[in-house]
Amino acid sequence: MELISIADVRAAADDVAGTVLRTPLLPTAWDDELWLKPESLQPVGSFKLRGATHAVARLDPALRSRGVVTHSSGNHGQALAYAARAFGVPCTVVVPEGAPAVKVDRMRALGADVRLVQPARRLAEAERIVAETGAALVPPFDHPAIIAGQGTIGLEIVADLPDVDVVLVPVGGGGLGSGVATAVKALRPSAAVIGVEPALAADARESLAAGEVVVWDVARTYRTCADGLRTNLSALTLAHLRERLDGIVTVTEDEIMSAAGRLMRDARLVVEPSGAVATAARLYHRGELPAGRTVAVVSGGNAEAAVLAAALAV
Amino acid sequence: MELISIADVRAAADDVAGTVLRTPLLPTAWDDELWLKPESLQPVGSFKLRGATHAVARLDPALRSRGVVTHSSGNHGQALAYAARAFGVPCTVVVPEGAPAVKVDRMRALGADVRLVQPARRLAEAERIVAETGAALVPPFDHPAIIAGQGTIGLEIVADLPDVDVVLVPVGGGGLGSGVATAVKALRPSAAVIGVEPALAADARESLAAGEVVVWDVARTYRTCADGLRTNLSALTLAHLRERLDGIVTVTEDEIMSAAGRLMRDARLVVEPSGAVATAARLYHRGELPAGRTVAVVSGGNAEAAVLAAALAV
Repeated sequence: MELISIADVRAAADDVAGTVLRTPLLPTAWDDELWLKPESLQPVGSFKLRGATHAVARLDPALRSRGVVTHSSGNHGQALAYAARAFGVPCTVVVPEGAPAVKVDRMRALGADVRLVQPARRLAEAERIVAETGAALVPPFDHPAIIAGQGTIGLEIVADLPDVDVVLVPVGGGGLGSGVATAVKALRPSAAVIGVEPALAADARESLAAGEVVVWDVARTYRTCADGLRTNLSALTLAHLRERLDGIVTVTEDEIMSAAGRLMRDARLVVEPSGAVATAARLYHRGELPAGRTVAVVSGGNAEAAVLAAALAV
Repeated sequence: MELISIADVRAAADDVAGTVLRTPLLPTAWDDELWLKPESLQPVGSFKLRGATHAVARLDPALRSRGVVTHSSGNHGQALAYAARAFGVPCTVVVPEGAPAVKVDRMRALGADVRLVQPARRLAEAERIVAETGAALVPPFDHPAIIAGQGTIGLEIVADLPDVDVVLVPVGGGGLGSGVATAVKALRPSAAVIGVEPALAADARESLAAGEVVVWDVARTYRTCADGLRTNLSALTLAHLRERLDGIVTVTEDEIMSAAGRLMRDARLVVEPSGAVATAARLYHRGELPAGRTVAVVSGGNAEAAVLAAALAV
């Protein structure tokens, strides 16, 4: 299987400049060797804007003008809506009934046409819209352009901290980890890139051990509060992670919420549980990690007020 | 009275680089012409790090080696502790008894010697330490070096958004407003710099109208939840604001908390009430402001968990 290259990531960086925020590295007051990469500050509140913007930018202009479609109950839908608006093309997001109203409202506020369907019909409905309108389907992670877009985070980390030793990155579908590892290992081969996932959704660790995509069913991955990390890998992301990731660490639910509280109180970042797992690994599993100058990717900050209040109370 | 110049602010920018975070401008999803300057992301959670770092940098090295002293129950104490640590010199902070334990703990974690005294004895105790040790007193706002340090925010705003039309800045003691107005009016004279303060602590508006420092007593200014903006102006900051500020807008307590909730939910920034007033002005007093491309300075993010929970619930 062909993997993306550092040249693909550099090309993505050119494509997303102006739409995506160049996030700073934030030193932390509690750990002299820990910096945060706050993707929660992106206009839609997550790193997903990078991949979505790059995917839209790479479409042939004639195809792009017919619009873009995806299915998402979460951050990718908002990201694609924002990217489509930036390019002035229509966007349809197929959303499973029962998704949080606030997320649907945000997609609509960005101009997206939101179609609510039964969860099992998501993909079929998206494909039906593609067939009907000629719009382009933009998947959340299983695509080289998405992976290259997320990889721009790795470029920025090495540019801002050239002697970085460790990069910690959340793993759900694996697009973020694949892209970041591609960039970091190319530019700074001595640095370790470590994936972090909830122990209750440790399908990536199991897949890496097995050498093939091991699917955890919905009932199992939905036990974790980190709703952005319930997705399984694809063959494409597994191939990247096998080649380029240095390891996987898992964190508990208590550790995730405690890290989220720490990030809110002491780094003044509003984070969703998925966005806190990398920091949780550094806080609570330091003995399992390589030593040295470490960057934790804070992947997103879209959480219900009740979740934020719970994190503050830990 | 001699005012600081744009050259002073430029010199400050050189002095604070490496210690102070170069914060990005964040576009907002809800207002196409509003950007946020998130000083809450500084390592100590507020813009105060800029002035404190510059003041320490400007001390004669022989004097600096004897240490720095201030009196503060709030953000300036943490900022000075951080700046002193960066320069490897001792720091003593005189804190009034009854100050939040979390703030005292943070100053101590940064290596500061914290002296708890009765509120009325704060200044006397700080001066006693100066006399005893030969350390330098670094005031929170009433000093040209502090004002020039805060002004670096204005430099960065104009660098990142050269066609800015309006800059909204919280006003407490007036050091932030004085510095930002100095930089912005020098580099972009057509831009308006507007101060924002709580209606319940509108001493700056009254002072500007009177042409002299009007003192609101503690019982009066302590009515506002914006604890960073309860301070009165000094003769030095009033002189800067009279010359360089284009106006003052006041906001209500409800508007402050509502804006804080908006910043947490939709910009994923943890903010203290004082940090939300500039955004509140844009949200709720737009008719009183000049039109156009607007930057709101989000001055800080150090708040008790109960305050953050209250803002989220609005």
